[in-house]
Amino acid sequence: MPSTATGSLSASRELTFHQRADLLKALAAHLREQRPAFYELSARTGATLFDSKFDVDGGIAVLGAYAALGRDRLPDATILVEDEPQRLSKAGDFLARHVAVPLHGVAVQINAYNFPVWGMLEKRAPALLAGVPSIVKPATQTAYLAELVVRSIIGSGILPEGALQFVAGSVGDLLDHLTPQDLVSFTGSAATGQRLRTHPAVVTRSVRFNAEPDSLNCSILGPDTGPGTPEFDLYVGQLVTEMTVKAGQKCTAIRRALVPREHVDAVIEATRDRLGKVVVGNPRSEGVTMGALAGLQQREEVRCSLKALTDVARVVAGDPNRFGVVDADPERGAFLPPILLHCADNDRPEPHEVEAFGPVSTVLGYDGLDDAVRLAARGQGSLAGSVVTHNPEVARAVVLGLAPWHGRVLVLDREGAKGSTGHGSPLPGLVHGGPGRAGGGAELGGLHGVLHHMQRTAVQAGPTLLGAVAGERA
Amino acid sequence: MPSTATGSLSASRELTFHQRADLLKALAAHLREQRPAFYELSARTGATLFDSKFDVDGGIAVLGAYAALGRDRLPDATILVEDEPQRLSKAGDFLARHVAVPLHGVAVQINAYNFPVWGMLEKRAPALLAGVPSIVKPATQTAYLAELVVRSIIGSGILPEGALQFVAGSVGDLLDHLTPQDLVSFTGSAATGQRLRTHPAVVTRSVRFNAEPDSLNCSILGPDTGPGTPEFDLYVGQLVTEMTVKAGQKCTAIRRALVPREHVDAVIEATRDRLGKVVVGNPRSEGVTMGALAGLQQREEVRCSLKALTDVARVVAGDPNRFGVVDADPERGAFLPPILLHCADNDRPEPHEVEAFGPVSTVLGYDGLDDAVRLAARGQGSLAGSVVTHNPEVARAVVLGLAPWHGRVLVLDREGAKGSTGHGSPLPGLVHGGPGRAGGGAELGGLHGVLHHMQRTAVQAGPTLLGAVAGERA
Repeated sequence: MPSTATGSLSASRELTFHQRADLLKALAAHLREQRPAFYELSARTGATLFDSKFDVDGGIAVLGAYAALGRDRLPDATILVEDEPQRLSKAGDFLARHVAVPLHGVAVQINAYNFPVWGMLEKRAPALLAGVPSIVKPATQTAYLAELVVRSIIGSGILPEGALQFVAGSVGDLLDHLTPQDLVSFTGSAATGQRLRTHPAVVTRSVRFNAEPDSLNCSILGPDTGPGTPEFDLYVGQLVTEMTVKAGQKCTAIRRALVPREHVDAVIEATRDRLGKVVVGNPRSEGVTMGALAGLQQREEVRCSLKALTDVARVVAGDPNRFGVVDADPERGAFLPPILLHCADNDRPEPHEVEAFGPVSTVLGYDGLDDAVRLAARGQGSLAGSVVTHNPEVARAVVLGLAPWHGRVLVLDREGAKGSTGHGSPLPGLVHGGPGRAGGGAELGGLHGVLHHMQRTAVQAGPTLLGAVAGERA
Repeated sequence: MPSTATGSLSASRELTFHQRADLLKALAAHLREQRPAFYELSARTGATLFDSKFDVDGGIAVLGAYAALGRDRLPDATILVEDEPQRLSKAGDFLARHVAVPLHGVAVQINAYNFPVWGMLEKRAPALLAGVPSIVKPATQTAYLAELVVRSIIGSGILPEGALQFVAGSVGDLLDHLTPQDLVSFTGSAATGQRLRTHPAVVTRSVRFNAEPDSLNCSILGPDTGPGTPEFDLYVGQLVTEMTVKAGQKCTAIRRALVPREHVDAVIEATRDRLGKVVVGNPRSEGVTMGALAGLQQREEVRCSLKALTDVARVVAGDPNRFGVVDADPERGAFLPPILLHCADNDRPEPHEVEAFGPVSTVLGYDGLDDAVRLAARGQGSLAGSVVTHNPEVARAVVLGLAPWHGRVLVLDREGAKGSTGHGSPLPGLVHGGPGRAGGGAELGGLHGVLHHMQRTAVQAGPTLLGAVAGERA
């Protein structure tokens, strides 16, 4: 598609970063107005109003953040000169700089069902700021919500024609037509990600590929932290939030709760108490705090994973077969209660490998800080990890121990608690992605996300011509 | 290999950047002393003394450059804090920064036969500065020279034990053991690169993979530039250099000479004149300016590619079947003369797709600047391009037109000529790699090459704990 790009496909790369930033800002303002319609349709995905805001407002916030980034950190130019001149000769008569220019292709953006709006906008924003058009492929389960948002964007007339395209249903032979100037960004299962990554067009044309599958994220209660401390309560509160927001259908949700072995019982008890207050039911009904999964098939998959997990762990809170549902038919709706497991043998592979993509977490006891770090790495690469501690040395040791295996690590204590954005929330200014099982990629991360859609090229020349290339007046 | 890392495998990541920089500096000094032995053995690869210096001194220079980078641009710490704190809450009580930490694995570095020393050291230097050990797999044809250098490095005792390992011959099931913390960096054919990239361990464990195959690099004579200008002579001189250094066995060499159609004859004539002065023969003999290819098989491959090219282009300088050779047997040594082709139909695919990996270039006429840029892109992604012009507008238009398809673009004119490092020379401070056919990767590029071996992790915390993680005293 891109080497035969029409005028319209190149329209956004002919704008300056500031002009593109203005489009993002206008788009955010436009979508903000339409939110009630989005919330209304979002409830059909099983989302509570809180969940919908996470998806819709979260997505709009990414547009706003990239608009600000474009204005504040990028020039009013079509290309970015990345660095100062390097001398390549002693006399200084031959120099070099790196420039970043928009790729001349299209970003094929394949989204997951759990965040139909956020997932689409968080991929679109950095691509648009880079000057690259997008072809969006939504997940089938929630395509109707993504479609409504895209229809609203197209209808607004804000974007240049062709800058955003939408393919619901099969993409046919789309990937066969990829060129070296295109990109593929994928969020979804590891298996599909691997199939896309090894597609012949991707491989032979070195198509930039980013995968963001879900991962077995962990949250560590610091070895210094026990019941009675503010951090203990923060730990349990965050765990419950991560289990229940979007009914646990978050690629960043906490799947493994790693706690000092001596505090396992206390953590289970406190979490069970808090989970007891969760009200499952029709997301539109007053008082409901957790809605349904995206569909019956998703629930079936969670039940399958639960079966594998309960071979080695016992259920300590919630009963997948017996639970109350407010204002809805528990059989027709894809409901599940939050389920906490405890695995006494922390070396069993299942808790580190089997993901139940729903309101399910497993508590694992650990023995000392090194053991906690070792268990975290058993996930083989995660999007997000967290450690809850008030001790600076513990914070440093755990963060640096986790860092090689994580794209993002959150430290929670009494000082940061009020402002904390939460274990499971990717942010536009922070890298979103992780090594290994988490796909080995990175989205967002502020400028990093923009540069992912651009080619970095070293330019070497004498001072006058280098200045001309960089857009400096002689 | 890495998840069972022994103490010695982690030794270099326990050093600070400055300590690692000092190792690089000491290594460069040590190897500099040994150069005569390296040159001596290098001649057996067909290299002239000039070629050998390109390989040996060039590689040592990369060690020196990364030593300086480590001292000047990186902290005396084991990790890099990449940015200033971002506020994540209005009150400023929750912040974030990105840290980069060494991967806990091994960099598997698979090298090509043409630069046994430079290719090995340019991969080793950024990995060492990042704190990551290397397993080097040299190309069979010139493994004896790589082995001599590695033996000298090991013998010096400068590096921690295990920080550099060497596997000559088959790597067996090495790749099956890759983990998410390992990297693979490959230089060689596109076909092998694609096989490695799709290896099940690489795919399922998201192993960082960088490929650097050769490409159909072009050099453009500016549309404003004709015979009688200094730039015309610079263009021809650079073309001849690129055709003959290392007998044209450079992944960055000029394969396509794009010249204004009206100057095709003049370029051919001037190039033929200069090529007439090239003396092919025993690289150890006085007066020889171009040695042999790395082996008879390599020569056979060049002859095959030449056959495909001469279906659509005619030979305008050099005769692959009749040429003089000084002090050597033209049949036993893998000699070839420099061969210039001219393809009258610039739209034929062969000149843009078929690479003769030897002293071979094809002249193609173009009609106007847009046509030159279009033809450059027909290479489908290149490591290096160049444009020779004294006109600032032409320089800017061509560089920005080429940039999406190139990792590096050199502009040559009378002002920069004296200091020019040459079309074909990758430099430690500049990105080396390119999109599409050039593998879609990037090596070197100063700090970029170091960060490639590290995990970038977003860390979120309150001010006190974030300070502790970043290594600041409270």
